[in-house]
Amino acid sequence: MDVVEFRPTPEQYAWTFGGVAPTHRIRPGTALKLWTEDAFSGRLQRTTDLPSRVLDMTQVNPQTGPFFVEGAEPGDTLAIHIVDLTPARDWAASSTIPFFGALTHPYLLHEPLPEHTWIYQLDRAAGTLHVEFGRHDAADLRLDLPLEPMLGTVGVAPPGREVRSSLVPDTFGGNMDTPEMKPGTTCFLGVNVEGALFSVGDGHYRQGEGESCGTAVEGAMDVTLIVELIKGGAPAWPRLEHDDHYAVVGSARPLEDAWRASQHGMIIWLGELYGIDPLDAYQLLTQIALSPLANVCDTNYSALTKVEKRHLPAADAHGGMHRHLRSLAKGLL
Amino acid sequence: MDVVEFRPTPEQYAWTFGGVAPTHRIRPGTALKLWTEDAFSGRLQRTTDLPSRVLDMTQVNPQTGPFFVEGAEPGDTLAIHIVDLTPARDWAASSTIPFFGALTHPYLLHEPLPEHTWIYQLDRAAGTLHVEFGRHDAADLRLDLPLEPMLGTVGVAPPGREVRSSLVPDTFGGNMDTPEMKPGTTCFLGVNVEGALFSVGDGHYRQGEGESCGTAVEGAMDVTLIVELIKGGAPAWPRLEHDDHYAVVGSARPLEDAWRASQHGMIIWLGELYGIDPLDAYQLLTQIALSPLANVCDTNYSALTKVEKRHLPAADAHGGMHRHLRSLAKGLL
Amino acid sequence: MDVVEFRPTPEQYAWTFGGVAPTHRIRPGTALKLWTEDAFSGRLQRTTDLPSRVLDMTQVNPQTGPFFVEGAEPGDTLAIHIVDLTPARDWAASSTIPFFGALTHPYLLHEPLPEHTWIYQLDRAAGTLHVEFGRHDAADLRLDLPLEPMLGTVGVAPPGREVRSSLVPDTFGGNMDTPEMKPGTTCFLGVNVEGALFSVGDGHYRQGEGESCGTAVEGAMDVTLIVELIKGGAPAWPRLEHDDHYAVVGSARPLEDAWRASQHGMIIWLGELYGIDPLDAYQLLTQIALSPLANVCDTNYSALTKVEKRHLPAADAHGGMHRHLRSLAKGLL
Amino acid sequence: MDVVEFRPTPEQYAWTFGGVAPTHRIRPGTALKLWTEDAFSGRLQRTTDLPSRVLDMTQVNPQTGPFFVEGAEPGDTLAIHIVDLTPARDWAASSTIPFFGALTHPYLLHEPLPEHTWIYQLDRAAGTLHVEFGRHDAADLRLDLPLEPMLGTVGVAPPGREVRSSLVPDTFGGNMDTPEMKPGTTCFLGVNVEGALFSVGDGHYRQGEGESCGTAVEGAMDVTLIVELIKGGAPAWPRLEHDDHYAVVGSARPLEDAWRASQHGMIIWLGELYGIDPLDAYQLLTQIALSPLANVCDTNYSALTKVEKRHLPAADAHGGMHRHLRSLAKGLL
Repeated sequence: MDVVEFRPTPEQYAWTFGGVAPTHRIRPGTALKLWTEDAFSGRLQRTTDLPSRVLDMTQVNPQTGPFFVEGAEPGDTLAIHIVDLTPARDWAASSTIPFFGALTHPYLLHEPLPEHTWIYQLDRAAGTLHVEFGRHDAADLRLDLPLEPMLGTVGVAPPGREVRSSLVPDTFGGNMDTPEMKPGTTCFLGVNVEGALFSVGDGHYRQGEGESCGTAVEGAMDVTLIVELIKGGAPAWPRLEHDDHYAVVGSARPLEDAWRASQHGMIIWLGELYGIDPLDAYQLLTQIALSPLANVCDTNYSALTKVEKRHLPAADAHGGMHRHLRSLAKGLL
Repeated sequence: MDVVEFRPTPEQYAWTFGGVAPTHRIRPGTALKLWTEDAFSGRLQRTTDLPSRVLDMTQVNPQTGPFFVEGAEPGDTLAIHIVDLTPARDWAASSTIPFFGALTHPYLLHEPLPEHTWIYQLDRAAGTLHVEFGRHDAADLRLDLPLEPMLGTVGVAPPGREVRSSLVPDTFGGNMDTPEMKPGTTCFLGVNVEGALFSVGDGHYRQGEGESCGTAVEGAMDVTLIVELIKGGAPAWPRLEHDDHYAVVGSARPLEDAWRASQHGMIIWLGELYGIDPLDAYQLLTQIALSPLANVCDTNYSALTKVEKRHLPAADAHGGMHRHLRSLAKGLL
Repeated sequence: MDVVEFRPTPEQYAWTFGGVAPTHRIRPGTALKLWTEDAFSGRLQRTTDLPSRVLDMTQVNPQTGPFFVEGAEPGDTLAIHIVDLTPARDWAASSTIPFFGALTHPYLLHEPLPEHTWIYQLDRAAGTLHVEFGRHDAADLRLDLPLEPMLGTVGVAPPGREVRSSLVPDTFGGNMDTPEMKPGTTCFLGVNVEGALFSVGDGHYRQGEGESCGTAVEGAMDVTLIVELIKGGAPAWPRLEHDDHYAVVGSARPLEDAWRASQHGMIIWLGELYGIDPLDAYQLLTQIALSPLANVCDTNYSALTKVEKRHLPAADAHGGMHRHLRSLAKGLL
Repeated sequence: MDVVEFRPTPEQYAWTFGGVAPTHRIRPGTALKLWTEDAFSGRLQRTTDLPSRVLDMTQVNPQTGPFFVEGAEPGDTLAIHIVDLTPARDWAASSTIPFFGALTHPYLLHEPLPEHTWIYQLDRAAGTLHVEFGRHDAADLRLDLPLEPMLGTVGVAPPGREVRSSLVPDTFGGNMDTPEMKPGTTCFLGVNVEGALFSVGDGHYRQGEGESCGTAVEGAMDVTLIVELIKGGAPAWPRLEHDDHYAVVGSARPLEDAWRASQHGMIIWLGELYGIDPLDAYQLLTQIALSPLANVCDTNYSALTKVEKRHLPAADAHGGMHRHLRSLAKGLL
């Protein structure tokens, strides 16, 4: 297996999906050992660092990549398998940002919520993140939350000649911010431009579903991926496969449309896997779907439709690609 | 413990929250052994029964109750603990209904989706529901899905002199259609009128999150509850407590507002439990919330914010009522 | 023509659509000379009166009525013609109310916007409303705005055994808050219960489209109506007819669904008037519809689809009822 | 005054805002005499031309431009005055497109609505558009609708390194599809990139508010503009000024957020013009705003907040630029 290692310098970060030249050309089947900077570009380091003072909003959510995948053409399917995610630092940060997040709103007449930064200390041995709450001295709560690393952002160049900010989730993936994008996941994305031009970033040491305040436990990440290409078969919306689940991610506003897109995408996938009629698949999802939210704060909101494989007959999604990649991944670790 | 048993006749069904006289007056601490008819009022019995032919849309979602709880006054908190849910029949039904459901819409120009009824056969020994898919002979898929009984509808009389259809979920609970309303759950509801006037119904033998086609595996249910009253402390939105989780249910449109209501409600609850500042609670939820959807088909959509107790220090929500009811429930089973 | 005059005492106000006994039984063709209290129940009288101090939120938007219309049965169409609206006081009030209005939100984490009350002085001779702006001494702006009286609330009892607050707009009309409900308008509402049980209230001396802060120029009103009954023909959504326009009011959330309902309702109406196919009517509306918002602050938002009669061949909507009522109205003034 | 005339060849069309090299560099104060192709790229010419057969969806909504305005820098304000819009053909077309439009939806399970094309014949002397309706022979309706030409699309390059399809409306203007973009209008847009890079297109011979089916009376247009530059003062959302009105266009989903953005933008504008406090401006808009919808079909929906100048003291918005441009325009016609 080809292995490419890459730790971008700040000048090499990509800030968009599309619109930038690839940093590498890779062959399908390549493993990537990458480093990703955190979504704040590393500028939030202590609780006294406030976003409005230290952030450069033109330089948030830096991407590592894009990678040009040889042979990838519009209509093909890129399979990105997350082999491993390991925190690259011993701390991570989260913060409120003026008028960003699910419980504030940019077009109302309120003053912004207070800015506040929380720093999480990683205990690698225990696999926990230590955080202290105590605004206003009202109460003091110290918690050790489990480390559950994930990637907020995995995306390809968009269709229709567009270039989108790395803050955007859409049909091309992007800033979906779902905790389901974790080690062991295969993410299937439709290819829109020659070479696919995918990039990753926005490592989260953990995140709740919905990412309400807008920023997860944001930290630099060591990322190991394997990238494969399937000719044809491009799904309309990003698909995820775990050993135990299938999931489709929809991104839109209002939130019901994000979820509808994910349901629609899963109905098509169930049709591909089992040949069942859309109305039968609709009925089946009604009784078995899991529907965890991903983000309710980004440019588009993201919601998942997820099904447990144990409810269904065995099947080889996208030609058994996930199993193949799981097997390759074992050789890498 | 007082035990009240009640199997309503069709004339005794309630079709609304509020607006009907109580069937019983009970003291706090009473156990109820109830029977609930299915949401179709038992009229969908075979796959050839189509809603537009056999349903009476003025008689859907029949409620058992309402119960007048002695001493309950506006501002109090009703605690309804679900001791047991056992299917009262060996089959259950689900169906598409014209222009009802998440993947259709009443104000567009499309013809309705086809009506189709699916019948699920219960295997009590195996704890499974057998269903056959095969519309259009396109494919044939036979599945045995796990029985996971829940109540779609648990509600009290609404505030503000209103009377609402039993199809509506809102601050008063009602037709929330969340799979989290299962045996072992304590549901806390704010009391709006003297006596609370709560009722239950809409048993589901199982349901996916979102209830996309609009009808779960709808079946008559034998329901065992214990009802308690807490003076004061009425939550703005329904709260659920399991042995392992806290959850708040928000109901609104668009879906983001349902979820925001649940987040807001959980921030208030975390403040009550740990005294933490709302901004700290917002941050905490950002990292630990689970956000399963309940329904995306009803008059209001319902979404949950759910947290795992394992992430938090021990606490006694509502004076430890859930633990108290769990202990009482053991004596009943 | 029968003429009924009625000035309710505070004990006679209705606070809901449905759920209250009629104050009068009237025959179709009756003229009503009514007085309506303002939406604040007269409690906001000077700029120092703040809603959180002087309002009783269980007593807002008082209705005059309901009226039982003899012969009205479910499926019939009530035609309410607004002959005249004359301010019953020389002042009116508007105010911000905590977490109510289009540019605030109840489920976010912001503090409420400041409460402030504005008093408008009526100059009957000039037909203007004088108001002074000068919060924070930042600037001083004194305006004389045209008097343009309208009724915020015109509704019948809802279907499905429901009782709704007088703050709610829906298929039954209610608190639609559209400036199009002005003298010269005929409002067609579907009848849901025997006698229709309609009521009116919420006079506005003027209102912008959208009613952004949540309260218009709220004032007591002398209201002259003529009420007629058409057997059958109940529209799904409220219809308005002016001498020059047809309009349909949809009420829902999110706002696009309110507007879609109004479009759908107008497509049906154009089909009734001209026999044209829904797709042709869709095309026609695409090119001629006016789409003024009504309210973006109430329980449901309300939006209109409105068409100018000059674009269309002459037609007699609902049997020419509007022309008939206009002619009757002349005899009353 | 410099005058630039430009009729692009198909190879010169722009399909995006941003991402393409300017066709011209112009000085502020330049008049432009342009030709714009229709949104279908001229491919729908008769009622038998169906979009799925004749359209190339990668070549819709061609833009004329972009124009590089000398001296324009981020934070500046571009003023584009529409001097004249004259149909460049004697016919125009409208059509339903599968799953596009306000009364259909891409993520539901319905089949697409029928495709149908309507051709409008221009009578220049009468100033009318003749159209015939008669699908299904159900009815036959022939109408002559007034010619009211407008531009669907006026936009500059977006901020944040993005490139957006010409189908998108947003803070940078773009495909707003408002009938208010008509001769006599000055459109103020914030500049995001050096040179502003604005383009125009999507001429409509007329359009209803909301553009429900997704396509107006689409026709090639002869467009006369004057372009001016104001240093600084960039508004957050597009502003329009007519002789009699101010308007702000917001674009977002759901529709309430588009309208909230327009309200927020107008509150800021009223603050600039009269120094009044935002809460006073909120109150004022509540009583005087007009709120016509623009489109409820595009990637973002667009809604306007519009106020009549007659309600307000005289003021010189953006230094009296509109009056200045009106005066210059007289010299051009």
